Amino acid sequence: MGGERLYLYDTTLRDGQQTQGVAFSTAEKLRIAQALDALGVDYIEGGWPGANPTDSAFFEEVGATRATLTAFGMTKRAGRSAENDDVLAAVLDARTPAVCLVGKTHLFQVTEALGITGEENLEAIRASVAHVVAQGREALFDAEHFFDGYAGDAGYAVACLEAALAAGARWVVLCDTNGGTMPGQIGAVVADLIARGLPGDRLGIHTHNDTEQAVAGSLAAVEAGVRQVQGTLNGLGERCGNANLTSLIPTLLLKPPFAGRFDIGVTEAALEGLTRVSRMLDEILNRVPLRQAPYVGSSAFAHKAGLHASAILKNPATYEHVDPALVGNRRVIPMSNQAGQSNLRRRLAEMGLEVPRDAPALGRILERIKAREAEGYTYDTAQASFELLAREELGCLQEFFEVERYRVTIERRRDAQGRRVTLSEAVVVVRIDGEQTLSVSESLDAAGCDQGPVNALSKALAKDLGRYQSVIDDMRLVDFKVRITQGGTEAVTRVIIDSQDGMGRRWQTVGVSANIVDASFEALLDAVRWKLIRDCGAGPAA
Amino acid sequence: MGGERLYLYDTTLRDGQQTQGVAFSTAEKLRIAQALDALGVDYIEGGWPGANPTDSAFFEEVGATRATLTAFGMTKRAGRSAENDDVLAAVLDARTPAVCLVGKTHLFQVTEALGITGEENLEAIRASVAHVVAQGREALFDAEHFFDGYAGDAGYAVACLEAALAAGARWVVLCDTNGGTMPGQIGAVVADLIARGLPGDRLGIHTHNDTEQAVAGSLAAVEAGVRQVQGTLNGLGERCGNANLTSLIPTLLLKPPFAGRFDIGVTEAALEGLTRVSRMLDEILNRVPLRQAPYVGSSAFAHKAGLHASAILKNPATYEHVDPALVGNRRVIPMSNQAGQSNLRRRLAEMGLEVPRDAPALGRILERIKAREAEGYTYDTAQASFELLAREELGCLQEFFEVERYRVTIERRRDAQGRRVTLSEAVVVVRIDGEQTLSVSESLDAAGCDQGPVNALSKALAKDLGRYQSVIDDMRLVDFKVRITQGGTEAVTRVIIDSQDGMGRRWQTVGVSANIVDASFEALLDAVRWKLIRDCGAGPAA
Repeated sequence: MGGERLYLYDTTLRDGQQTQGVAFSTAEKLRIAQALDALGVDYIEGGWPGANPTDSAFFEEVGATRATLTAFGMTKRAGRSAENDDVLAAVLDARTPAVCLVGKTHLFQVTEALGITGEENLEAIRASVAHVVAQGREALFDAEHFFDGYAGDAGYAVACLEAALAAGARWVVLCDTNGGTMPGQIGAVVADLIARGLPGDRLGIHTHNDTEQAVAGSLAAVEAGVRQVQGTLNGLGERCGNANLTSLIPTLLLKPPFAGRFDIGVTEAALEGLTRVSRMLDEILNRVPLRQAPYVGSSAFAHKAGLHASAILKNPATYEHVDPALVGNRRVIPMSNQAGQSNLRRRLAEMGLEVPRDAPALGRILERIKAREAEGYTYDTAQASFELLAREELGCLQEFFEVERYRVTIERRRDAQGRRVTLSEAVVVVRIDGEQTLSVSESLDAAGCDQGPVNALSKALAKDLGRYQSVIDDMRLVDFKVRITQGGTEAVTRVIIDSQDGMGRRWQTVGVSANIVDASFEALLDAVRWKLIRDCGAGPAA
Repeated sequence: MGGERLYLYDTTLRDGQQTQGVAFSTAEKLRIAQALDALGVDYIEGGWPGANPTDSAFFEEVGATRATLTAFGMTKRAGRSAENDDVLAAVLDARTPAVCLVGKTHLFQVTEALGITGEENLEAIRASVAHVVAQGREALFDAEHFFDGYAGDAGYAVACLEAALAAGARWVVLCDTNGGTMPGQIGAVVADLIARGLPGDRLGIHTHNDTEQAVAGSLAAVEAGVRQVQGTLNGLGERCGNANLTSLIPTLLLKPPFAGRFDIGVTEAALEGLTRVSRMLDEILNRVPLRQAPYVGSSAFAHKAGLHASAILKNPATYEHVDPALVGNRRVIPMSNQAGQSNLRRRLAEMGLEVPRDAPALGRILERIKAREAEGYTYDTAQASFELLAREELGCLQEFFEVERYRVTIERRRDAQGRRVTLSEAVVVVRIDGEQTLSVSESLDAAGCDQGPVNALSKALAKDLGRYQSVIDDMRLVDFKVRITQGGTEAVTRVIIDSQDGMGRRWQTVGVSANIVDASFEALLDAVRWKLIRDCGAGPAA
C-alpha cells in the first residue's frame, strides 16, 4: 500500500496495562508482541524496565522483531545528571533500539508538581534526550499534558517540544494525557505547531478516550499533519482507555479521505487478521469480546432491522460501510421478531435446509419464534435451538431419545471435620429405542469440589445414550450464561449454553423456565440433540 | 443552564432495540422512558407502532411525559396515497404528539432499491410529512443514508430535505445510516447545507459508531450548526451502536468549546444522575456495565498508575478532565494505599460504623475485600453483604442463628395426564439458641406453577426462625441476578439478590459459588442476617 509514510506506535503492553484489572504475565506480553509484529505496527512499547519486573523480563526474552522495540521511562529527575539517574539507567539497560521518555510540558505542573523552574525542566528534557541519543538509541519524547500545557502557556509548551527535537529526538509525541481535548482543538493545535515550523513527520499523537473521541482526536491530528499515531489494541488503557488501533488501522486503510493516502506498514493480508488479533487479546485477558466493537465485534456487521436485512440480501453496500471480510469479520443476519421471511430462508440455507419461497412452514416458524421470544427465549445467538425448532416445523427433525424424568438433589452440610461441603447429584431417565436407561452422576470435579447441579445433570444426561453415546463423547460445555428476563412474580430464567466438540465445532442453545435448573436442562438437551442431528443424520430432508 | 437551545432526541427504545440480543419488554420500555424523561431529553422515540407488538403496547401505556413522545415509521409506499398507507396509519394510530418518518435521499437507493423515480420519492416525502402535519402532529424526517446520498448526488439529497421542510417538517435529520462518514466530512456537509440556506435550527444529526466516531461526528455537526442530536443511552444500537448520549450529554455541558454555549434541557442535578441511569439500563439488559465507559464507567476515574494516583491526591485536576461527582461517578484509587482507607472509613460511617483512622481492622477489611473480589464477589452494589463482612472484622457482628444444612430437590417428570411438570422442594435445618428446627417448603405458586429451587429455599429459610420470625415476616425477594464470572481459574456463579421489607427498605446481598443454588442460598442468608441486625440490634458497637 503506497502513499506517505504514517507510523503506528503500539503501547498495549505499557499504557494498555494501566487498564483496571489488567496485569500481563511475561508470557502473555511475548504473545501479544508477536501478534503486533505480525500485524505490522512500527513500534512496540514493551513497558517500563526497572519499574516492573515483568517489563524487565519481557525485554530480556523478546528477541528480534520487525517492529522497533521501545522501552518507556521518564526524563531525568532534577538535581542529578542524566548519566547518574538510576531510573533512566534501568530503562537504557533494556538495550532496546528505541527509548521513549515522558516529560512535562505544562508550566503549571512543572512548578507546582515537580517544584522546579521552567528552565530546569527544559534542561531535563534536553539532557535526557541527548543521553539516549548518545547511547546510539532512537529517542522519542512523550509530551505529557501537552494540550493543557498549550492552552496554559503555548510558548513554553512549544519550547519543550523544540528542546527535545534539538537534542535529537526522532519524534515528539503530543499527549492528551487527561483525555479531555476535543478533536477540533487537537487539529487546530497541530496546525499551529506546523505553522510555527515544527516538522509534521517528527510529530506523534497520543490520545485517551475520556470523551469517547480518542480515535477522532488521533485522526484529526493526522489530517493536520502528524505522522505517528500511538494507541493500543482494543483500546486498552488507563481510565477509559487509549486510542483504539483496532479501529484506527482499518479506518486509515479503508475509509476516505484516508484510504490510499498513507503507507502504514499494515498489509491487506495482515488487515484480514485484525479480528483474530482482537479476539486473541480478549482471550488472554479472559474478557468477553465486545460485540459492538467497530470492525471486529461480532455485531459489527449484524443486521437486525428487517428492512436492513432484506436490503443487505440484495446489495451489502446498502447497509455496510466496508466489506467485513477485509478485516476478517463476517456478516450476521440474526433472527428476531423484526426479521422477515427472506432472512429466515437464508438462515435455513446456511444450515443446509433449502426451503422454497412461500413454503407455509416459513410462516409457522416465524410465528413460533415470535411466541417463544415473548416467553423469554432468544434466537439471535442460539442458532442450534433455532435449527431444532425450524426442523420440527419443516418435518425433518429426528428424535433420537426421550427424557422421561430427571431429579437433582443439592445438599449442603458439615463434613466429619466440621467444614461446610456442598454436593449435587442428578438422576436422568431416558428412553432410547424403547429401552429405558437410568444414569446418575455427582457434581464433583477431580479435586473433589462441587461444580453444581447443572454440571451433575450434564454428566448424567451424557452418561448413557446407548448406541448414540460415542457421538456425544467429545462434547463439552464451554460457556453458560444466565439471565432473569422478567421482574416480579413472572420472573423466568433464560439459560444460554455454549457447547464444543472434538472437531472444534461450537454451538449455542437456549432454555427458559421459572426454574433455573430446568432452564439449564432444556438448553443441555438441545445441545445434545443438535449434535446427534449433525453426526447421525437428520432424517428426511426438508 | 443558558445558551442557545440544542435538542436531544433519544432513540434507545427504537434504534437501541436493534442491538443484537436486545428485546425490551413493555415494562422495561416504560421504565427506561421514565428515566429518560427525568434526565431531561427533549424527544423519546418509543418504537414503530404496528411493526412490533411491544411498541404498540408501550404507546398505549406510557401516559404523560415532559419529553415529546415520538412514534417512528416510514414514508408512504409508492402507488398509494399517504391517507391509504396502512403502515403509516398504524404509526399515526399511536397518537403521539410527534412522528418521525424515515425516507430515502440517496438517488441510487431510490431507483435501485425502491425501483421508483427520484420525483416519486420526493412526492412520497412531501405527501407523508404533509399528512402527519395535517393530523396536528409535529413531523420529523429522518434522511436515511444522507451523507452517502450527498456524496452521490448532492442536489437530489438536498432536494429531499427541502421537500420535507416545505411540507412542514419541524426537523430534518441527517442520518449517517451506515456509520462510515468521518466527522470532518459531516461538519463540511452541514456547513454546505447551511450555506445553501437550510436552517440549522431545523437540522438534526443521527450517527452510528462503525468507525468509533459517532460522538465526534455528532459534535462536528453541532459545531457546524445542527441543533438536534439523536442518540441512545450507553450507545445501544444496530451493529456498533448509535451516538452515545451518555457521553454526549456531559461533553456538551462540561467541555469547552461546548460548555455554557447551549441549553440542552438537562439540569446539573439530572447530570448527577447520569451514572445511575446508565447502570440501570445495563441492569435491565443484565449486562456487565462497561468499566471503561467515558464518564459513567467504574474505571472512568480509576487511577492505576502509581505516579498518577499520588498526584491525584494532591490535586485531582492533574489527571482528571472533569470532576466525577458532576456525572454521579466516583474516583477510584487502588485500595492498597492511604486513599483506599479513607474511602473505606467514609463508607463505613455511612452505615453508622464510626471507625478511628488507622484502626487495624481497616487493613483487614481491605485485604478480605480484595481476596473475595478475586473469588468473584463484588461489593459495588451488595452493600448489605459488605456491611456483614466489615462488622465481622470490627467485632460487632451478632449471629442470630446457624444453618446446619439444607437440601433441595428438583424433579421433572410426567403427571397422570402425561404433561411435563417440574417441582422443587427445600429442607433447611437451623439452630437457634441451641434448638434445632427443620423447615420444608415447595416451590409452587398460587397457580400451582413451579417457581424453582431458589424460591423453595427462600421460603424454607424464612419459615421458622423462632423468636426472630416476626422480624423477617415482612421481607420479600424482589430481584435476583445471576452472572457467570471467573473466580481464580474456574467459572463461578455470582448471585445478587435484592430484598425489601414492609418499611420500604431495599438491600442487596451477594453469593458466589460454582453451585448456582448454593450461591443463591448464601445471598439469601446474608439478606436475612442483615435484616436481623437492622431490626434486632447489632451487638457491641465498633
